Amino acid sequence: MLGIGKTGWIEKEKPQCGPLDAICKPLAIAPCTSDVHTVWEGAIGDRQNLILGHEGVGEVVEVGPLVKDFKPGDKVIISAITPDWGSVEAQGGYSMHSGGMLAGWKFSNIKDGVFGDFFHVNDADGNLALLPDGMDLGAASMLSDMVPTGFHGAELADVQFGDKVVVIGIGPVGLMCVAGTALRGAAEIYAVGSRPNCIKAAKEYGATHIINYKEGDIVEQVMALTQGKGADKVIIAGGNVDTFDQAIRMLKPAGRIGNVNYLGSGDYIKIPRAEWGVGMGHKAIVGGLMPGGRRRMERLASMIHNKKLDTSKLITHKFKGFDKIEEALLLMKDKPAEVIKPVVII
Amino acid sequence: MLGIGKTGWIEKEKPQCGPLDAICKPLAIAPCTSDVHTVWEGAIGDRQNLILGHEGVGEVVEVGPLVKDFKPGDKVIISAITPDWGSVEAQGGYSMHSGGMLAGWKFSNIKDGVFGDFFHVNDADGNLALLPDGMDLGAASMLSDMVPTGFHGAELADVQFGDKVVVIGIGPVGLMCVAGTALRGAAEIYAVGSRPNCIKAAKEYGATHIINYKEGDIVEQVMALTQGKGADKVIIAGGNVDTFDQAIRMLKPAGRIGNVNYLGSGDYIKIPRAEWGVGMGHKAIVGGLMPGGRRRMERLASMIHNKKLDTSKLITHKFKGFDKIEEALLLMKDKPAEVIKPVVII
Amino acid sequence: MLGIGKTGWIEKEKPQCGPLDAICKPLAIAPCTSDVHTVWEGAIGDRQNLILGHEGVGEVVEVGPLVKDFKPGDKVIISAITPDWGSVEAQGGYSMHSGGMLAGWKFSNIKDGVFGDFFHVNDADGNLALLPDGMDLGAASMLSDMVPTGFHGAELADVQFGDKVVVIGIGPVGLMCVAGTALRGAAEIYAVGSRPNCIKAAKEYGATHIINYKEGDIVEQVMALTQGKGADKVIIAGGNVDTFDQAIRMLKPAGRIGNVNYLGSGDYIKIPRAEWGVGMGHKAIVGGLMPGGRRRMERLASMIHNKKLDTSKLITHKFKGFDKIEEALLLMKDKPAEVIKPVVII
Amino acid sequence: MLGIGKTGWIEKEKPQCGPLDAICKPLAIAPCTSDVHTVWEGAIGDRQNLILGHEGVGEVVEVGPLVKDFKPGDKVIISAITPDWGSVEAQGGYSMHSGGMLAGWKFSNIKDGVFGDFFHVNDADGNLALLPDGMDLGAASMLSDMVPTGFHGAELADVQFGDKVVVIGIGPVGLMCVAGTALRGAAEIYAVGSRPNCIKAAKEYGATHIINYKEGDIVEQVMALTQGKGADKVIIAGGNVDTFDQAIRMLKPAGRIGNVNYLGSGDYIKIPRAEWGVGMGHKAIVGGLMPGGRRRMERLASMIHNKKLDTSKLITHKFKGFDKIEEALLLMKDKPAEVIKPVVII
Repeated sequence: MLGIGKTGWIEKEKPQCGPLDAICKPLAIAPCTSDVHTVWEGAIGDRQNLILGHEGVGEVVEVGPLVKDFKPGDKVIISAITPDWGSVEAQGGYSMHSGGMLAGWKFSNIKDGVFGDFFHVNDADGNLALLPDGMDLGAASMLSDMVPTGFHGAELADVQFGDKVVVIGIGPVGLMCVAGTALRGAAEIYAVGSRPNCIKAAKEYGATHIINYKEGDIVEQVMALTQGKGADKVIIAGGNVDTFDQAIRMLKPAGRIGNVNYLGSGDYIKIPRAEWGVGMGHKAIVGGLMPGGRRRMERLASMIHNKKLDTSKLITHKFKGFDKIEEALLLMKDKPAEVIKPVVII
Repeated sequence: MLGIGKTGWIEKEKPQCGPLDAICKPLAIAPCTSDVHTVWEGAIGDRQNLILGHEGVGEVVEVGPLVKDFKPGDKVIISAITPDWGSVEAQGGYSMHSGGMLAGWKFSNIKDGVFGDFFHVNDADGNLALLPDGMDLGAASMLSDMVPTGFHGAELADVQFGDKVVVIGIGPVGLMCVAGTALRGAAEIYAVGSRPNCIKAAKEYGATHIINYKEGDIVEQVMALTQGKGADKVIIAGGNVDTFDQAIRMLKPAGRIGNVNYLGSGDYIKIPRAEWGVGMGHKAIVGGLMPGGRRRMERLASMIHNKKLDTSKLITHKFKGFDKIEEALLLMKDKPAEVIKPVVII
Repeated sequence: MLGIGKTGWIEKEKPQCGPLDAICKPLAIAPCTSDVHTVWEGAIGDRQNLILGHEGVGEVVEVGPLVKDFKPGDKVIISAITPDWGSVEAQGGYSMHSGGMLAGWKFSNIKDGVFGDFFHVNDADGNLALLPDGMDLGAASMLSDMVPTGFHGAELADVQFGDKVVVIGIGPVGLMCVAGTALRGAAEIYAVGSRPNCIKAAKEYGATHIINYKEGDIVEQVMALTQGKGADKVIIAGGNVDTFDQAIRMLKPAGRIGNVNYLGSGDYIKIPRAEWGVGMGHKAIVGGLMPGGRRRMERLASMIHNKKLDTSKLITHKFKGFDKIEEALLLMKDKPAEVIKPVVII
Repeated sequence: MLGIGKTGWIEKEKPQCGPLDAICKPLAIAPCTSDVHTVWEGAIGDRQNLILGHEGVGEVVEVGPLVKDFKPGDKVIISAITPDWGSVEAQGGYSMHSGGMLAGWKFSNIKDGVFGDFFHVNDADGNLALLPDGMDLGAASMLSDMVPTGFHGAELADVQFGDKVVVIGIGPVGLMCVAGTALRGAAEIYAVGSRPNCIKAAKEYGATHIINYKEGDIVEQVMALTQGKGADKVIIAGGNVDTFDQAIRMLKPAGRIGNVNYLGSGDYIKIPRAEWGVGMGHKAIVGGLMPGGRRRMERLASMIHNKKLDTSKLITHKFKGFDKIEEALLLMKDKPAEVIKPVVII
């Protein structure tokens, strides 16, 4: 990223490795919709000559003297969120906000991302995970952001056995919300979307019903499917500040909204007063950045390794070679109908 | 209540007692701000010839044949919220929404309240609690609504040892939020209010700091007191839909808002997008009607009985005689500076 | 059951229907290992002329005048645990202990069970669930006890995404623990058992590893599979009081044991002091009777209906006709190698 | 500690300061019963020439180059438990078990303690807290272990508004369990003990009833006080492996035991099978080492600073001068009737 709306290649110094840190080179990377927001919408403000990217698999090339568990040559999964584990916030269980709200998100935000010859990983022992033997690089790169973000949606919504859950948005994160919801025991999963390949994937990941907003008001569709009672939980993985209005209306009293969608614009999130029970309906509203770090990635990688989760269905396009990153990024920007997620194997 | 804006006395039949129910007569009653909202603002819509009141202590005069634990002559505390305990919602832990959102709130809403010669209590075994021997009638009548609502605020906000907690609004419910917050181990309690007698009571109930909105923006005051970090929790017991805007701004990432305020007007509750972490700040927003019922009242009554809580400080005015109810209600409506809560001993 | 060790058929009066109750006749029933314990081991003490059985599907033949949601002719799933929903214990979230520890377990314990021409259901609105259209009677009868008990094991152990979970015992309840564990997102599930058909079913329900106690100490096997670290969670669905010793030894610090096994003998459950961290290892030990009632059954039935769970794999033997109950019960007693669970379709 | 049963003064090198660490000198220290166990009972095995002590307040004399928030001259509270915050266990929320069960306990266990001219603190930014201005050194030294351990007992037992809670043992940790229980809203607190000064302090910290084991079986006393129903929660801060037998017997179904007692001997903790509901009574058993670290200490210090907690009542003996440490330790060993806790101001 050269500036808002402009991408290109730049030369930069190889990053410095601090005593607790690692320098890695990418083996596989994936562009994210957030990269698109960052460049073409300027969602996080202007950035000059920032290297993009926060999803991928890499190889360690250098470690600081205090790093204990990783060494050059290790193949590792990169966490999109790389907290400061020594911080007071991490001690309180919210490492993603270490150093300030959202400040655990460093790559392609407050420092260069992974779309470079080399990239820097803070707190290597806390933020890298060994790539399990034999795991496909593309599938593994979904562990950086898509899986932990999607699964966090299911956690935020606190899905329980037998729940009826709406998932709004079925891009790659939304699909992982569907998968995570199924893996927490929901009975009915209503996936809201319209693109045919996403609908197909949503069904494979466990959606029991598809709600197409082109076929009518989605609130009415949910109410019809639930005999007028509403859903137990709503996970938001798409839309905007107005989506919350719909979510509250389709939610049961004592239900719960889990948001993992980056809300790029609008002054206020709209919570309808009456449908929120004039303040007393016990409809909880929670939204949060995914938990990053080593433990989380190791555990999620184990789910793929043990065939509890198949991330390969997310990957619709595979590129080969570092120079294809731009092409993959533009694909993510233009999003032709058949794209879910591209990866670039370096 | 004769209609919106009109009060007066009417003659009604003594209510019928169902097999699981009880008929009681009042021994002490307290008017609530919600009664004021109901009559003079029409907050829940028009009601014709509805008997008001949902706080008080009574004596059982009749029980249905299936009632096991209560008999005529028993002195009992009345729960403002009287759920249907056999309902599916109660099985799910949300009895206050049994039969629909907020439908556990029956008195002076969907049936006659307690300001009558006699009143009807559904599911008597589940919704009455014996008045402990020797407990003051006025103090006990605070257990109907003020204590459980205020304490629920502290529960919704999930106050923990060492928290810094803002309580917005220090009427009688807000004061019980302060007390409940202190009784869950908060370190600093910032009470937002301006009336001198409420400020005095807030300090007695555990507030460590008073924030007066007349002395400047309350968000700025909280930020100053917390060295720019914000509060861990915010409990809302006053204000309106705009109050949430302030609450989010003064709240830390990973903080929590617990609302127990009845929001009487406005289309949307305002949640500021950026300060809510563009959807990902883990600032949870929860609001709920108090849990009613026998178990809750017995447990809270035990706190008063064991001197863990003194509700008598709430009561600024005592009337004697059934005919003083109207006077007490008008006092609550006009709220001269020295009023916190009146009770009427019958 | 005529007495300890003696079974046979007896004539009894048709049970009386209270105002909140229902009388049903069985459509399909399943004998449970607890029935075997009750008769042949006298596990709950002597019972004279008690009708056994607490699993099944039935048809309503009579309802009390206060029953609102069921009527004669309705086909219903029977909950093995039928709490008193109006009780103080149910208000506190532990309906299964309404009226005393385990007192929500009424069928074939403190009143006649379902192996009769007619049986009595207390609190019909709270304890029956409509059989979904088209659901197989045998599969549905697993919702009385096997599914909710097994799934409660996964809840008690608080299984989370990526956990490594041991399930000790893979009879029908243990198999449902495996299924429930998979449906809460475990990465690795170690099923402890030895019977081939149970092993086969365990794998189908999601076990990733089988641990056969005939092939060595199960603690050592778990430690080997987890690189010496131990499992995150252990669910106990078989064994005896000594099993807890093993469970603690194979469990990580901060792990959790969820027990759903009926412990029939022994004075003390053995918790090894040193491995329990000399009291400070945060290895939580929880054991509990399944939650019964309508809401739970409706939600679990919805999981079968939506093909999230297939209980038919549990059923290895199907009998036809009321008079085959004794044969099915004896099959459960003798447990030849190929049996998991028999059902009798009436 | 020279060896089991032997104490004395030894000369050691000043400890080395790693890049993330600090070296401190003591300003006030307190001997702990665990020190007594360690020396005279050999509870954690033999230790040769180990410096004892893990409670106190100190002054920073040196910091490593990566320490950001502390500098020489800072007065700091020392956490008895000093986890490795970068560890995978800390990421999972159980920092006290970082590096293995209980391995967050380093002082006077796996490295020299604080009773030296200088002592070493690992991960200084994560494990020190600034002493608030004006806080009494003796009162502050109770924040190292007594307060966080006692309060953790109330957390493990999950005390809620209106609970009836037994606290077994009212030494200094038990007294902080009482205080923590009161500060989480218990209605009745039954403190089990017999020494008059501890009983006096227990009442001041919130005990509503005293149970003296010299006056009869404590289970019977609890059952009598609770009308045969048992307590909601039991916190264990004294006794031995047999105490759990009593605790289970006095506990309600769905109750909870929180243990913070170091269990020094015995092979098995005794959980009575029948009273544990034959495995299904939902009586949760949890025991854990206190959470250490900076955030916790800062929050608890804030409670003292804001007068929510007064630790000075714990301190019955004050010594002056480094050479009085041995005398204070022997006082803790011999425990004459009037001792609760001694401190030594250096």
